[in-house]
Amino acid sequence: MRELLGGKGAGLHEMTRIGVPVPPGFTITTEVCTYCYAHRDRYPRGFEGDVRLALSRIENIVGRGFGDAENPLLVSIRSGARESMPGMMDTVLNLGLNDQTVQGLIRRSRNPRFAYDSYRRFVHMYSDVVLGLKAKDEKQHDPFEQILEEKKQSRGLRMDTDLTADDLKELVIAYKAEVKSKTGDSFPEDPYAQLWGAIGAVFRSWNNDRAIAYRQVYRIPNEWGTAVNVQAMVFGNLGEACATGVAFTRNPSNGERKFYGEFLINAQGEDVVAGIRTPRKIAELETVMPRPYAQLQKVSRSLEKHYKDMQDIEFTIEDNTLWMLQTRAGKRTGFAAVRIAVDMVEERIISKNEALLRIEADHLNQLLRPIFDSQGKQQASKEQRVLAKGLPAGPGAATGRIVFHAEDAVEWKRKGERVVLCRVETSPDDIRGMEAAQGILTARGGMTSHAALVARQMGKVCVAGCEALDIDYAGRTMRVSGTDLKEGDWLSVDGSTGEIIKGEVQTRPSEILQVLLEKTLEPSNSLLYQQYAKLMKWADNVRKLGVRTNTDQPDQAEAARAFGAEGIGLCRTEHMFFQGDRIQAVREMILAEDEAGRRKALAKLLPMQKQDFKALLEIMGDLPVTIRTLDPPLHEFLPSREEEIVELAHVMGVPVDLLRNKVKVLQEFNPMLGHRGCRLGISYPEITEMQARAIFEAACELRREGKRPFPEVMIPLVGSRQEFAAQRKIVRTVAAETMKAYGVKVRFLIGTMIELPRACLVADEIAEEAEFFSFGTNDLTQTCLGLSRDDAGKFLPTYVVDGLLAEDPFVSVDQDGVGALMRIAVRKGRKKRKNLEMGICGEHGGDPKSIRFCHQIGLNYVSCSPYRIAIARLAAAQATLLETID
Amino acid sequence: MRELLGGKGAGLHEMTRIGVPVPPGFTITTEVCTYCYAHRDRYPRGFEGDVRLALSRIENIVGRGFGDAENPLLVSIRSGARESMPGMMDTVLNLGLNDQTVQGLIRRSRNPRFAYDSYRRFVHMYSDVVLGLKAKDEKQHDPFEQILEEKKQSRGLRMDTDLTADDLKELVIAYKAEVKSKTGDSFPEDPYAQLWGAIGAVFRSWNNDRAIAYRQVYRIPNEWGTAVNVQAMVFGNLGEACATGVAFTRNPSNGERKFYGEFLINAQGEDVVAGIRTPRKIAELETVMPRPYAQLQKVSRSLEKHYKDMQDIEFTIEDNTLWMLQTRAGKRTGFAAVRIAVDMVEERIISKNEALLRIEADHLNQLLRPIFDSQGKQQASKEQRVLAKGLPAGPGAATGRIVFHAEDAVEWKRKGERVVLCRVETSPDDIRGMEAAQGILTARGGMTSHAALVARQMGKVCVAGCEALDIDYAGRTMRVSGTDLKEGDWLSVDGSTGEIIKGEVQTRPSEILQVLLEKTLEPSNSLLYQQYAKLMKWADNVRKLGVRTNTDQPDQAEAARAFGAEGIGLCRTEHMFFQGDRIQAVREMILAEDEAGRRKALAKLLPMQKQDFKALLEIMGDLPVTIRTLDPPLHEFLPSREEEIVELAHVMGVPVDLLRNKVKVLQEFNPMLGHRGCRLGISYPEITEMQARAIFEAACELRREGKRPFPEVMIPLVGSRQEFAAQRKIVRTVAAETMKAYGVKVRFLIGTMIELPRACLVADEIAEEAEFFSFGTNDLTQTCLGLSRDDAGKFLPTYVVDGLLAEDPFVSVDQDGVGALMRIAVRKGRKKRKNLEMGICGEHGGDPKSIRFCHQIGLNYVSCSPYRIAIARLAAAQATLLETID
Repeated sequence: MRELLGGKGAGLHEMTRIGVPVPPGFTITTEVCTYCYAHRDRYPRGFEGDVRLALSRIENIVGRGFGDAENPLLVSIRSGARESMPGMMDTVLNLGLNDQTVQGLIRRSRNPRFAYDSYRRFVHMYSDVVLGLKAKDEKQHDPFEQILEEKKQSRGLRMDTDLTADDLKELVIAYKAEVKSKTGDSFPEDPYAQLWGAIGAVFRSWNNDRAIAYRQVYRIPNEWGTAVNVQAMVFGNLGEACATGVAFTRNPSNGERKFYGEFLINAQGEDVVAGIRTPRKIAELETVMPRPYAQLQKVSRSLEKHYKDMQDIEFTIEDNTLWMLQTRAGKRTGFAAVRIAVDMVEERIISKNEALLRIEADHLNQLLRPIFDSQGKQQASKEQRVLAKGLPAGPGAATGRIVFHAEDAVEWKRKGERVVLCRVETSPDDIRGMEAAQGILTARGGMTSHAALVARQMGKVCVAGCEALDIDYAGRTMRVSGTDLKEGDWLSVDGSTGEIIKGEVQTRPSEILQVLLEKTLEPSNSLLYQQYAKLMKWADNVRKLGVRTNTDQPDQAEAARAFGAEGIGLCRTEHMFFQGDRIQAVREMILAEDEAGRRKALAKLLPMQKQDFKALLEIMGDLPVTIRTLDPPLHEFLPSREEEIVELAHVMGVPVDLLRNKVKVLQEFNPMLGHRGCRLGISYPEITEMQARAIFEAACELRREGKRPFPEVMIPLVGSRQEFAAQRKIVRTVAAETMKAYGVKVRFLIGTMIELPRACLVADEIAEEAEFFSFGTNDLTQTCLGLSRDDAGKFLPTYVVDGLLAEDPFVSVDQDGVGALMRIAVRKGRKKRKNLEMGICGEHGGDPKSIRFCHQIGLNYVSCSPYRIAIARLAAAQATLLETID
Repeated sequence: MRELLGGKGAGLHEMTRIGVPVPPGFTITTEVCTYCYAHRDRYPRGFEGDVRLALSRIENIVGRGFGDAENPLLVSIRSGARESMPGMMDTVLNLGLNDQTVQGLIRRSRNPRFAYDSYRRFVHMYSDVVLGLKAKDEKQHDPFEQILEEKKQSRGLRMDTDLTADDLKELVIAYKAEVKSKTGDSFPEDPYAQLWGAIGAVFRSWNNDRAIAYRQVYRIPNEWGTAVNVQAMVFGNLGEACATGVAFTRNPSNGERKFYGEFLINAQGEDVVAGIRTPRKIAELETVMPRPYAQLQKVSRSLEKHYKDMQDIEFTIEDNTLWMLQTRAGKRTGFAAVRIAVDMVEERIISKNEALLRIEADHLNQLLRPIFDSQGKQQASKEQRVLAKGLPAGPGAATGRIVFHAEDAVEWKRKGERVVLCRVETSPDDIRGMEAAQGILTARGGMTSHAALVARQMGKVCVAGCEALDIDYAGRTMRVSGTDLKEGDWLSVDGSTGEIIKGEVQTRPSEILQVLLEKTLEPSNSLLYQQYAKLMKWADNVRKLGVRTNTDQPDQAEAARAFGAEGIGLCRTEHMFFQGDRIQAVREMILAEDEAGRRKALAKLLPMQKQDFKALLEIMGDLPVTIRTLDPPLHEFLPSREEEIVELAHVMGVPVDLLRNKVKVLQEFNPMLGHRGCRLGISYPEITEMQARAIFEAACELRREGKRPFPEVMIPLVGSRQEFAAQRKIVRTVAAETMKAYGVKVRFLIGTMIELPRACLVADEIAEEAEFFSFGTNDLTQTCLGLSRDDAGKFLPTYVVDGLLAEDPFVSVDQDGVGALMRIAVRKGRKKRKNLEMGICGEHGGDPKSIRFCHQIGLNYVSCSPYRIAIARLAAAQATLLETID
């Protein structure tokens, strides 16, 4: 009944229902909240009477009276929406206290300090939450904290706990005076006035700016409303027989089936979280309070069994009596998620399908990345410092010596050094250097910048867009938030948090990688691997989407197969153009004055490209290898800075003017929308011809060796049937010629990337010629939204923060815009070619939410970077399961 | 019966039917052609017999025999598709000649030279067309022309007509030897073999590459096929009682109702076109051959009456007998089109609606532009030279002295000089200079470059993208195809042909402009104006689309109203930012460190923008004025070159580093997809606020003066409902505040430009907030096709030539792609807001084909540059009429 009672309320009622001890209380349903909003803040008829009635039932159960000066009932008021909305949860504890009832509390507890402390806390919380005197942001001083601070100073005390009952009593008076001066009204003494104020405040909080923005971001409907939980207070701070704590039914960090948590003797719940006193490990509770501890263990086991999931619980022990205050599914790391899910299947608590749905697919990447040794990181907190924070662009931990140039990275690595490559931004020229580095750190660029993209594909650690970086390439130094660093200094970057740490921090490789890639660990010696493997097998049995990988490197292709890739979905041929002396031939081709000159240069590239393709085709066996013809604008292969132009001209032995002029001619206002993709192949058919020849010669040679290579030739940036047909003709002709020359037949397809809105709109026409579609959602997002990925970093973050965009459209497919185009393309494409093979090869192919979308619209496969294949396999399985559930 | 007989065949049959003398013949229908293609080049059963039968009927009529050595029948074979496909029409004349029949011809004509000349022509044409020995391109030598040339040289002759019968006879022998050597086969002597060869060749020509490409471009279905016309030859070259000629039933240049044409005594049709002899004016025929001339006049009158349109006819007179060879609607200038259409209504030949459909809307722009005085141009052909050709980007003729810098243009004009501004390309900084110039000439940029766009909007003459230009700004000189020119030299540019002419050529202004704008000509003194006005009135009575104008200048707004604009559809506020000292304030705003600094600079702009808006709103009366908030990326307001940065820093009194850094920060990889449009207003709400304030203060002041201004505030580059809602809130708040302060109410709307694919796809959501949509089809084309307008010039022309694109999508709306998005937006927008006002304000708003599309999808108005308003009014009327016809 989460819809009616909210998450917290549902948990409390469910616990009560199954006999778990919960302080008596009641929940005001979300319906009341929505009624209020629909009727100008008026409550439904009879509501106030219902609340009084419910309260009187609590009074009867606990034997105290709300507002009773002798034996006062205090209550807690807590909001609780259907879905947890952290940061907007409003809570008021100890409600019902006033100058009369505090005396009753003193009498009952025989503890004036406790009573005034509770009173002080109540006035503070109520003023914050209900009267709106909360500090608006971190910079503003909370007036109550300020009064408290002044009191401590005047008394020469350091800790709140050092304050006496009299001090606290005086604080209550000072707080109330503050309320009077700020609001003009006295602090409400009538407990019912307090109650109505608190209920109204919780309802109002549903529609404050922060909550609205939060719901926009997480797509929580405004109509849901929040519930309000009113409960009798229980006190963990009434003496040594009292305690309060939080616990998990299993270890949320590694998933071990072991009760895990913390508690404080003689304390209130908020103290555990606030960290004023250091909490003790839950196991110690057994010694201190054996009976309540045993009860707690029993309760937690039954809750886990009841909810069939690891629970995060809050409890209070008042005079050796256990009270449960909350239970909910516990947040966990990826490691814990896998272990708990697999264990629970083996414990027969959940089914395999339930296990698959239990894991957030994205969290699987935690299993693959190297991590800072936890001990190492503690060292860091003493001697080393977190210097700055950037965007966590490539998860994992890396430590190494600073280098500023790609060549240096390669050189240092050759000498056996680990390095962190620090650049203002990276370019395709830096690929080798990035590969050589442990980690990559850039000052510019977002989560989808070149650095981030390549890093994720390589499985490299990367922190991008760290604006605190001020790099001096010439001097080989950089300044980070006031600290000067130079080439060779040790630096550690945490790609999971975005932190830059001075000095060396120890890392260790992931177990999964040790088994799958390094083969330094036997599967039987790794529980984690075994559980991972089980999970993947279950996922593969369920999923309908195929999973391919984006790569152009043999080693990555090997890794991808180890991770379960069922083919290559995108091989970018241009990356190969940068390697070794190829770039020389590429530049010769660009500078050639006519077709003959271009053909001469292309002839040099042919054998090299052929070897590249042969290696990839061989590794992938009979699985499809989708090879994209040349895509980027030609200027990317030439330098742009004057010095570099002069230098290259000398190296190439061409006049500087010629090169300079070519660079100028190739310059574009909007390269993303310029002379690239199939437009190159149409202007220079000989390029497509050479690439097709390389592909088919490679395939034919393998076929002759008895292998069964399966190339899929993919034409990029197609906007019309005519463009595709023109390129297809070239490829088909070369394929036929080559197969005839080799005397073999090779299975192949010719298809296109769908990455322009126009391609989606005329997909029916294109499908008459094309044998497959592969959605290039990176460019499709750029064109559909009119948003340059490289430039959006300046304003897109504000958009997400302000709720103008639900999320970064380069991370997860913009389903309303880009997704609408994809649906059109699928419908039109399949109308003309029923069995048209369709996939996605944009970065989104590794994003679980986008993978689910791809499943929904009926694609055949997703393609992602090698290190996201496990995520994609799981997400694809989840998509199938969620479809059944929906 | 054009479908079956083709255009030429239908004309011949129709003339025969109504009693006009036509040489006997028959037409092989298009069905035979399509049958052949469907059945591997086999003819339908009985086809050959039918042809022989038809031929025997010709023999009977003319009393000669096909292949008869005594009295031979010669025939012409001419293709004729449904729609004229110039350049692929294959024709063979004099078919039936061989070594025997030529003797018969000699005997009959008693003219051996004529007979061998006909034979020589036949062998040449047949070899070209049927045997495929035609030169492939202009560079290749035609082997037959070469043989002819050698013959003339060896005989010391200059003209073909100087060759004797013997010379010609030898040529026939040489030609046949050439055929034998090239093809290995002898030239066919059998007349029937010749006939089948010619028919087959015409059919084959339907599917040659050139014809396929042509059909792709003009969207002529491949299924249509071509017809073949076989007709008895008549000879205009059989003596002095023979003639041949072409004529128009009215003057195709100015439309005057006067028989107009040319003829040659004793000649064949092709001689008139070839220009070997100078043809005589048709009127002279009356003196030479009074009886055939009278008959010709009678026939032409009856043809015009029959076809209800001015006819373009071909005739031959053989022995004083008139034969008609062709009739078709005549091509005409815009001037002639208007005059003929209006005259024919008054002559009660056609209805007003037929008149409206008779004029190609685009041709109306000829009526508005200044033209080179025809006498002046003849002078030019002697002393002055056409130096080069560029793109005809702004129609009209301009002559003036060369300047290279915008400031110089302004300065020279101030001194009373006419200038032509020559630039590599223009930028918004050049606006004033462009306005000051008579004509604009650029070396880079296409038909929709900045120069072309602004020129058309201003009605300026412009030749763009003239690659022969090599400008040296520093030296103030340029080199055009080998000729050196310097500042101050006279230059003439013809924006209708793209020609660049050295020296001064006289121009005169258009009559329409003299009446409407300059008011130097009384309407009653201009027949052209009166006819134009009648036509426009008829158009306005028919059209459903409104017509607005794109302008931000008061004088342009005045002109637009004179041309009949019903409002402003796009006022680009940023153009105002460049004027005078405003750019200073704009730059201060950009350099400001915080909101306060920006507001200070914006406060300076406010009164200036207000005056701008007030002037426009006042001129437009109660018509809507659509004002777009700031759109371009901010770097457009800053210089980019180091020297300029240094200079500006000094002028502004800011550190060079500050300015340089700002320029660097604002730099974008793809500015088109960058921080612009409403993204600026979202990052800096104070800009939108200032602009809204300027709009509403201007409107309120006018309202106070009793006027009824109607501003429509338009938010650019919106991609989501949230973006629009955020900007709308700012505008509404300012509107309410301002109206309250002034104590008046002003009618206004707030809407958005639809210029991103995403906006089309979520148009329903946007329509919940927006009161109008205006399609920005320039940017929508760029994003939908992934095509940067500024960069596409490098490859788009090839695309159009190769038939990959039907036409330039920046000229006419790409209906399959961009149009599909527009349809989606219209459907979704109207679903949510039934009466949503929708228009188009991209450049396409002035393109007739696009206007028709806008009518079809149900837009409310089009908006175009002032000088295209008449075109838009006519095109809108035609759209309505064609809808009824379809």
